[in-house]
Amino acid sequence: MRIDGRKKNQLRPLKITRNFIKHAEGSVLIEMGETKVICTATIEERVPPFLRDKKKGWVTAEYAMIPRSSHERIPRESARGKVGGRTHEIQRLIGRSLRSVVDTTTLGERTIWIDCDVIQADGGTRTASITGSFIALMDAVQFLRKEKKINAMPVRDYLAAISVGKVGGELLLDLNYAEDSTAEVDMNVIMTGSGKFVEVQGTAEQQAFAKKELDDLLRLATSGIKKLVASQKKLVGELA
Amino acid sequence: MRIDGRKKNQLRPLKITRNFIKHAEGSVLIEMGETKVICTATIEERVPPFLRDKKKGWVTAEYAMIPRSSHERIPRESARGKVGGRTHEIQRLIGRSLRSVVDTTTLGERTIWIDCDVIQADGGTRTASITGSFIALMDAVQFLRKEKKINAMPVRDYLAAISVGKVGGELLLDLNYAEDSTAEVDMNVIMTGSGKFVEVQGTAEQQAFAKKELDDLLRLATSGIKKLVASQKKLVGELA
Amino acid sequence: MRIDGRKKNQLRPLKITRNFIKHAEGSVLIEMGETKVICTATIEERVPPFLRDKKKGWVTAEYAMIPRSSHERIPRESARGKVGGRTHEIQRLIGRSLRSVVDTTTLGERTIWIDCDVIQADGGTRTASITGSFIALMDAVQFLRKEKKINAMPVRDYLAAISVGKVGGELLLDLNYAEDSTAEVDMNVIMTGSGKFVEVQGTAEQQAFAKKELDDLLRLATSGIKKLVASQKKLVGELA
Amino acid sequence: MRIDGRKKNQLRPLKITRNFIKHAEGSVLIEMGETKVICTATIEERVPPFLRDKKKGWVTAEYAMIPRSSHERIPRESARGKVGGRTHEIQRLIGRSLRSVVDTTTLGERTIWIDCDVIQADGGTRTASITGSFIALMDAVQFLRKEKKINAMPVRDYLAAISVGKVGGELLLDLNYAEDSTAEVDMNVIMTGSGKFVEVQGTAEQQAFAKKELDDLLRLATSGIKKLVASQKKLVGELA
Amino acid sequence: MRIDGRKKNQLRPLKITRNFIKHAEGSVLIEMGETKVICTATIEERVPPFLRDKKKGWVTAEYAMIPRSSHERIPRESARGKVGGRTHEIQRLIGRSLRSVVDTTTLGERTIWIDCDVIQADGGTRTASITGSFIALMDAVQFLRKEKKINAMPVRDYLAAISVGKVGGELLLDLNYAEDSTAEVDMNVIMTGSGKFVEVQGTAEQQAFAKKELDDLLRLATSGIKKLVASQKKLVGELA
Amino acid sequence: MRIDGRKKNQLRPLKITRNFIKHAEGSVLIEMGETKVICTATIEERVPPFLRDKKKGWVTAEYAMIPRSSHERIPRESARGKVGGRTHEIQRLIGRSLRSVVDTTTLGERTIWIDCDVIQADGGTRTASITGSFIALMDAVQFLRKEKKINAMPVRDYLAAISVGKVGGELLLDLNYAEDSTAEVDMNVIMTGSGKFVEVQGTAEQQAFAKKELDDLLRLATSGIKKLVASQKKLVGELA
Repeated sequence: MRIDGRKKNQLRPLKITRNFIKHAEGSVLIEMGETKVICTATIEERVPPFLRDKKKGWVTAEYAMIPRSSHERIPRESARGKVGGRTHEIQRLIGRSLRSVVDTTTLGERTIWIDCDVIQADGGTRTASITGSFIALMDAVQFLRKEKKINAMPVRDYLAAISVGKVGGELLLDLNYAEDSTAEVDMNVIMTGSGKFVEVQGTAEQQAFAKKELDDLLRLATSGIKKLVASQKKLVGELA
Repeated sequence: MRIDGRKKNQLRPLKITRNFIKHAEGSVLIEMGETKVICTATIEERVPPFLRDKKKGWVTAEYAMIPRSSHERIPRESARGKVGGRTHEIQRLIGRSLRSVVDTTTLGERTIWIDCDVIQADGGTRTASITGSFIALMDAVQFLRKEKKINAMPVRDYLAAISVGKVGGELLLDLNYAEDSTAEVDMNVIMTGSGKFVEVQGTAEQQAFAKKELDDLLRLATSGIKKLVASQKKLVGELA
Repeated sequence: MRIDGRKKNQLRPLKITRNFIKHAEGSVLIEMGETKVICTATIEERVPPFLRDKKKGWVTAEYAMIPRSSHERIPRESARGKVGGRTHEIQRLIGRSLRSVVDTTTLGERTIWIDCDVIQADGGTRTASITGSFIALMDAVQFLRKEKKINAMPVRDYLAAISVGKVGGELLLDLNYAEDSTAEVDMNVIMTGSGKFVEVQGTAEQQAFAKKELDDLLRLATSGIKKLVASQKKLVGELA
Repeated sequence: MRIDGRKKNQLRPLKITRNFIKHAEGSVLIEMGETKVICTATIEERVPPFLRDKKKGWVTAEYAMIPRSSHERIPRESARGKVGGRTHEIQRLIGRSLRSVVDTTTLGERTIWIDCDVIQADGGTRTASITGSFIALMDAVQFLRKEKKINAMPVRDYLAAISVGKVGGELLLDLNYAEDSTAEVDMNVIMTGSGKFVEVQGTAEQQAFAKKELDDLLRLATSGIKKLVASQKKLVGELA
Repeated sequence: MRIDGRKKNQLRPLKITRNFIKHAEGSVLIEMGETKVICTATIEERVPPFLRDKKKGWVTAEYAMIPRSSHERIPRESARGKVGGRTHEIQRLIGRSLRSVVDTTTLGERTIWIDCDVIQADGGTRTASITGSFIALMDAVQFLRKEKKINAMPVRDYLAAISVGKVGGELLLDLNYAEDSTAEVDMNVIMTGSGKFVEVQGTAEQQAFAKKELDDLLRLATSGIKKLVASQKKLVGELA
Repeated sequence: MRIDGRKKNQLRPLKITRNFIKHAEGSVLIEMGETKVICTATIEERVPPFLRDKKKGWVTAEYAMIPRSSHERIPRESARGKVGGRTHEIQRLIGRSLRSVVDTTTLGERTIWIDCDVIQADGGTRTASITGSFIALMDAVQFLRKEKKINAMPVRDYLAAISVGKVGGELLLDLNYAEDSTAEVDMNVIMTGSGKFVEVQGTAEQQAFAKKELDDLLRLATSGIKKLVASQKKLVGELA
């Protein structure tokens, strides 16, 4: 039994509220237990300089936590005048993994900005951001299709993410903050709806890990992501 | 009849959800119509350098908008590397007006950080931030009292704020974005529960205004603030 | 009797030296008692991006204090790498109020930069900056007319500003630093030559204020501004 | 046959020059084919604030490329005024993985700064940085032991890193720049001398990958790292 | 005959106004022809970290130009968020040369901040800053002596500076902007009252220069500095 | 006899390794004794904004030290977020002096970026940077000629630099760090192959210096630079 009563291979309750912010082309509030992230998708009718005149679109992401989303207040990065390393790492991961399921040629010469703003943090904010952003991205894409700006469907597969880890010698799915902060091994896994890996990041926090453990953790993550993708399918239907 | 069906002297629906963020000592989601702001209060057991050893506390505020809270996406100030002028102006206003109803001597040598994060903007974000922050501040203060860290009540009066303006020749209470962006005169008023002014900021956006108009606008604001304070009283009770 | 021997409703001696900096299209040194500000107006033959191709001009302002203009040395904002909140607030105020008396359509697609550099500070630097900048702006506009770059007069009215406040229970006009730093209520008022308000900013520094006090302070400010406008008229003549 | 004549599972020539910079407590030039990185280790007799009085040491890393280490000149991050996301990600990875083989309690209350400066880049700069930094770290630790500042050996295991990837459908060990920039899948693997994983980061650059491919890539990486660790052992001897 | 009617070896009119800013311990307005610089000296009762507990004082300088001091408006370094190379170079030069005539041991553990703010620029702003700052420094030192904070005189010699250059083939003393901007060779010379060099910076702007020219330029500079020192002596008297 | 066994007028051993970085159009490792600097030249096919459409090229330089090039680790300027004064001063000097021997009209509308990265510092890094950059610049220019991008030779003369100083009362050529840090007078001299001065910067570090000493130091520097230019000639041949 885990601290919050879950079984080792059990996800926290997932809740996705669509159209959470009225101005955005796509916007969801995703809740994984006590972790809550607002994900919005904004369409901008231009691409960054390095893509100009290449007949391709772009998907990029930014991530932030509101100061008191966490146990201790986190000073604003705007006040400190720079974006920190952890933020950089997370927003690069979100953008890269979303692009992996988007055909940027079909998207046209436009950018979809994904903004993930954590309003309450209890572990797994980066994976919740990815799972939630996928829905916001889909809604923005459907907006483009309704507006007849694109014809084909640029999103090629579902995309969801989850954390797994070794905590007190046990392999656990979907770590909350208390588990994450004492984990011996921590792994974030991002997969497509067709069950392939988009990103695997395993880190020995306290002790190096063997191939067998890696395999077990990936199996655990795969089982969790299947459930998340099933939920995504219910919300957005088939990709066509 | 206004664009959203209100009368000239009618507030938008007010909704205050307390304990919105589980980690903060005080936290509310305030909604004034479509304007939604998360206000949290964080207690820090030290004061800024200029107050050291003066046996006084401090109340300070920070304000931000999540990028897609607005019609157009607003680039993050963290990415731009600096806090903009409008943000500076608003957070100074929030902090200054909250301090005006706090006896910082009673508060002890600690700081209360107020964070106002706008998640959806439809006009009046700074005034909603102040009205909501008052509740978050009260909850943080009650937390300190329960913890026996302070004995007396440092908050001396209620505090609420509203915008008024002249739009198309009409004087209106509680402007939404559509009204605010076409106003000839724009005024933000902050008052105590006892009906005195803490801050009056009137700006001629398109035409200078006469004393008579100023008086009428202040009367309109006063009527609105009375209703806001009545709501605050219901939520937090008497100040004792 | 006030600390410097003035009556309650008496302005400090005003001295405006035109053409103070030889390079600028408009430049004045304004002295209000011991407060001394250099105000220059620079013409730039382009407008900021958001105004491009709108057949309108722009007026914008920047404000700074030289480090030892004040009792204590103020570290340079360039060395700290960012513009502070107070500076932002003041320069936004100066720019906004000057624009309120300028017909930017008549100005043509150009920008007038107003720079206010405080060389000695003794209270009221922002209001002195506005009163002085008006003259620098007028001189720059007359330069444009002499150069036949514009035909009509884009400046529609005079503009001057003054501070008033409640100090030790007394309502005083044109606060110096000693008065300002102990004021219970502080108010900055900006008015046109025709006696209308452009900006009213009243702040309860130590105690909230009643409507009656607000009215009395505005009356005091109005009397002071009338004298400042009379001086401006002598210097720049009729607006035609 | 690969572009540089190597077999699929063949490392590039490895060359490690110790004592490359005379001032540093540890310093190596590591060359993996045409990739060349200077790694230095600096001992500082204090720890960062979050470790104060915890009787532990710290190991941290910074990474940079000299501007023309690459095909195109890369503007200096000092001139741009901020550290970019890629740099942040890499230096966090280097520091985290080195710490995983260090017993920071044995190290004493001091920091070892690792600096990795890429002077020529041809793919695999982050993995070469880790493999090289391990030697610099060992030399700094031996310096501390010679100086009698520490008694026990704080380094618990060897540490080396390599990249693997899927390029044109083939799984390759130790990608050079030409291979890396066209890879479908890119993976960085960091392992200890005892054959356990410290970090596994696999990224689908163009197509998601199956578990089978992940396994094959990890096997390839493991074979390469074994050779790197063998070279490290020759240089620094047994860890005792 | 030069553009402003001077002879080749003739200084521009020098005017030094003391006690120009009422708050500063030392403050002068120095005018060399149309070049006008406010120099203030501020006493701070502490030293920078690298001098702590060394029983020595420090003298340091900062330099800036107000935006419209020049022909074209110069954007503020505070708005750009960083101090430029030219500013850095000049303020380092001013601080270094002033320190060369100060016995920092006699000064006690305090810092004298020199601020040079150019309000009108017509060439030679750095040399005028040095000549003027010497007076401000002396006044601050005399203030310390009056306050009985120091007993001995820490200033060991007078210090003045001038520019010389080769313009159109002619060697000229004290270049104004028009001369400076077309000079083939530009040299800044800083000397003590006893006729020794503190700093010599000669730069070939358009053509390299021979030893003979260097000698002639130094002779010219020496003659000018003698006159400046004579003026300084009249103002501050003997150094004792 | 000097600390490293040299005579007073003796240079440290000079070693220049060309083509040190494979990507750059010109690149050398210059070693002056224990001082080692990588100098690269990069060709960019555009000019900075202020030179646009003027049919001229540009040469500019940047300088940095890797953190542990020095006795004490120097924090990275990228981490501090700004380029320091010393760095600014040095890179302006390098760029200015290289431009003095280049006919920018012949260069065409392109920029040559010079990057000087100090990997080991033992005094004289700025002068070694200039002497080495001249070779990198020449190699980039010869690259342009081979590519038929330019016809004539834009480099008009050789360029080398050396430091001289007064240390313990003795005049010494080519100071190493130990000498430099105790020098009474420090001078950097940059000369052309034809024996003319491009830059002379003499600084009284501890005592002002007389004309006689200046002359002796310049004679010493001239003798050293002649030898450096002779080495440059051997490497790059005649300038034609």
